[in-house]
Amino acid sequence: MKEFIFPFIILLAYAAVNAAFLRVNYTILRNEILKYEERLMIGANLTLNDDEKAANKVLMKAKEEELIAGFKDPSQYAPARNFLETKKDIERSKVFQLLRRMPKGAVLHAHDTSLVSLDYLYHNITFRDNLYVCIDEGDVRLHFFRVPDKSCDWQLLKKVREDPKRGRQVNDMIRSRMTMECNNPAIAYSNINKAWQKFMNIFSFIEPLLTYKPVYEDHFLQGLEELYEDNVMYLELRSTLPNLYDFDGTQYQPEDLVGIYKNLTQRFKEKHPDFVGAKLIYAPARSADDKTVEYYIETLKRLKTLYPDFVAGFDLVGQEDLGHTLESFIDLLKTAEEHNISFFFHAGETNWLGASTDENLVDAILLNTKRIGHGYALTSHPFLLELVRKMNIAIEVNPISNQVLKLVDDLRNHAARPMFSGGYPMVISNDDPGLWGAKGLSYDFYEGFMALMSMHADLRSLKQLAWNSLVYSTLNDSEKQKALHIWERKWQTFIKDIVSENY
Amino acid sequence: MKEFIFPFIILLAYAAVNAAFLRVNYTILRNEILKYEERLMIGANLTLNDDEKAANKVLMKAKEEELIAGFKDPSQYAPARNFLETKKDIERSKVFQLLRRMPKGAVLHAHDTSLVSLDYLYHNITFRDNLYVCIDEGDVRLHFFRVPDKSCDWQLLKKVREDPKRGRQVNDMIRSRMTMECNNPAIAYSNINKAWQKFMNIFSFIEPLLTYKPVYEDHFLQGLEELYEDNVMYLELRSTLPNLYDFDGTQYQPEDLVGIYKNLTQRFKEKHPDFVGAKLIYAPARSADDKTVEYYIETLKRLKTLYPDFVAGFDLVGQEDLGHTLESFIDLLKTAEEHNISFFFHAGETNWLGASTDENLVDAILLNTKRIGHGYALTSHPFLLELVRKMNIAIEVNPISNQVLKLVDDLRNHAARPMFSGGYPMVISNDDPGLWGAKGLSYDFYEGFMALMSMHADLRSLKQLAWNSLVYSTLNDSEKQKALHIWERKWQTFIKDIVSENY
Repeated sequence: MKEFIFPFIILLAYAAVNAAFLRVNYTILRNEILKYEERLMIGANLTLNDDEKAANKVLMKAKEEELIAGFKDPSQYAPARNFLETKKDIERSKVFQLLRRMPKGAVLHAHDTSLVSLDYLYHNITFRDNLYVCIDEGDVRLHFFRVPDKSCDWQLLKKVREDPKRGRQVNDMIRSRMTMECNNPAIAYSNINKAWQKFMNIFSFIEPLLTYKPVYEDHFLQGLEELYEDNVMYLELRSTLPNLYDFDGTQYQPEDLVGIYKNLTQRFKEKHPDFVGAKLIYAPARSADDKTVEYYIETLKRLKTLYPDFVAGFDLVGQEDLGHTLESFIDLLKTAEEHNISFFFHAGETNWLGASTDENLVDAILLNTKRIGHGYALTSHPFLLELVRKMNIAIEVNPISNQVLKLVDDLRNHAARPMFSGGYPMVISNDDPGLWGAKGLSYDFYEGFMALMSMHADLRSLKQLAWNSLVYSTLNDSEKQKALHIWERKWQTFIKDIVSENY
Repeated sequence: MKEFIFPFIILLAYAAVNAAFLRVNYTILRNEILKYEERLMIGANLTLNDDEKAANKVLMKAKEEELIAGFKDPSQYAPARNFLETKKDIERSKVFQLLRRMPKGAVLHAHDTSLVSLDYLYHNITFRDNLYVCIDEGDVRLHFFRVPDKSCDWQLLKKVREDPKRGRQVNDMIRSRMTMECNNPAIAYSNINKAWQKFMNIFSFIEPLLTYKPVYEDHFLQGLEELYEDNVMYLELRSTLPNLYDFDGTQYQPEDLVGIYKNLTQRFKEKHPDFVGAKLIYAPARSADDKTVEYYIETLKRLKTLYPDFVAGFDLVGQEDLGHTLESFIDLLKTAEEHNISFFFHAGETNWLGASTDENLVDAILLNTKRIGHGYALTSHPFLLELVRKMNIAIEVNPISNQVLKLVDDLRNHAARPMFSGGYPMVISNDDPGLWGAKGLSYDFYEGFMALMSMHADLRSLKQLAWNSLVYSTLNDSEKQKALHIWERKWQTFIKDIVSENY
């Protein structure tokens, strides 16, 4: 652990304030303090080589220009506004373009059915054969069938689209059910419950679309593809392991689904040898009773036996503030722990300091969680913060998710800020990029770099984040070594490209 | 200093997570951790007597009810929304009504011309004799004259108001120029610069109205009255010491103004013997050149010599983000320090971590500031935070000001939150209550208690805040003892009243 207080500086500071002293001392002391604080920041212990220094100059020039523009005219500063309104602005940013190209390591916090961009869901999946639509009291549902069932007045979507006017109407309905994007997010999502309601509605809407087995497979491969294109090389995916269906009426068990994930990952790696792979965190819904959680744990144990290297561990998902705390399941969770299963709990994804959601942080830590999903409330827990540092528990920060889901408006007020400036074990992830129009990890890196970190945070912070994402993954030692080696090579290429383009 | 880490707990935590253990141990450990963190919170070291415990129950029952209502329906939770839209909701709160009656100690951070409620400014001051109005290109100006000058087409306001329609129009214009209240603050103040622009415009508008000497005097007395009615017993007022005018053409020097303040305070104390008084922090505009700051310092030295007990010290005011950093005036400020003048600097009232505004925090501390105004950016400075604690520098937090002036929207994201949960030396103040429809200190106490502190923060936190406001004041030892004694008596009465009403 980094020593928190640098005694020499303290001494100097006391000397400074307790006695008259010359201007030159003041300036020296002032700079020492500023430099000391910079040494606490994430990545501050890394040393850049000459090429990296040159690339850093390019990066920091762009960062500075964009921050100055935002400082002069706040409407030019994207992180202060809802991502649902700023995506296009971010895409024009030079910093963002550099981040896109940067090898960012891993995505350690993302969910199965929200991993892929809206574009693919809409333009690819909804235009497939055998997709049926049912329009009922102004609402719309989609399902694949060989022969539609009688549960609704199903019509072949292809057919409906042949009528230009009707087709347009249906297309608009479908699109709007697939994304949180809308005309006025401030009004549409005026509070956290409204945002979560829409968010959960999207999941319900896309589930029957995505759980058609051929689609589920393509969708996962597309998820890997989008990460790969965004220079992400490894994924730990949280999946509820939903029930898939096909036209033969096959029943797919959770273990079948894990097998599918594993095979597809293998296939993807064969096509892209520089992609390190994926692992799975079984993460079913927390809004469950004891019996269901017991079933989860039994399933988990079976999966872990069948796929010991592919199944990374366990988590529970869903709006934390609605209850179903970790403590309420503690005995059941302890039985999983005894079977050597790792936890990656969502905890403290809340603004209610002192509520049961907030106390999930204590349980996650006591259950020896390997990482904490969000940990938004952690900053106001001085003791838990120290535990997290000492126990080396990484915090998975998802800036855009927290903004779109209304924990915070201006991302400069994101609670994780002091953790970046204090050099805690952080990773940045993307949670559910497909649901708010994002793609890959770079948008979240942009928000993190421009708003959650100091203006002075530079390439070292980003390098540390990429490195953290592999180090805090569940890759075993040899996998990790190999991954870091591949990443290092990609990093060097990235740096050399930036340097050669700019000099 | 409180020991930050409790080694016993650490040990237990390690034992817990590194070995299997029984449920009973888990529960004990969990509770120990939660209790340990509560012991770090502001006020947690205070012990309540039986009456206080009973009053605390009343308070916490009301707090819990209101928080649960807000938890269920976020639109019922005022601190998440702009104060400009929630004032009426807050007034209906039982917690607020209790806070109104609570002896809150002192206001340590408030500004001269924004101290008094809009109601008084509008209903009292604008209805006085000799007030003239000039309507020019849709804008409006006010000034007192015996005989109006030729600078504008001045008309007697009384006269204008005699025409009902015209009167209504002018009244609407005047009111809207005096307050940040408006129909849709989210649109009117869509970013920080727009909010500050309106804020500064109000100051310009009311200056000629308030600097008419008889008005200035009444206005200050009214300020004391409103604090007194709100159970505040002492004030440290930041004043720019503006130029007053009267109908005799008298020139008032800064020392005359300080004399007026001192005499009025004395008069108010004679009327209200349980009011402890007021002191003055000379706080002129930071948007100044070296020559002007030199004049400030010379004035300050003179004032300090003339009124050693009444003039508490020095500060600089105005939007910090616009530059004129403490560092840029460092040599001049050091000369004041040598004359034994205390500083109470605004510093870090910004969201731009790493900007020069943010670095003002370093300079304030190195200049041995006694307190820090706002210190909004402090939470992301781990080393400065430790200095502030060790050097016992109080942080003057102004929740509503920070929200209305667009540093933060949902007050649960206020940067000071970890400082309350970490037990730093905090005071809550009201900054410019008159400009956003507040009155007294209770609204800010409400926001602080309901949003900046944990759900579990109770009467002890509030008592500590009241106590802090006197302890971190510039009252000398004997004044402080006397003030604490008076406060203690008021506190006991308050507690007894609550208890007797509820049992």
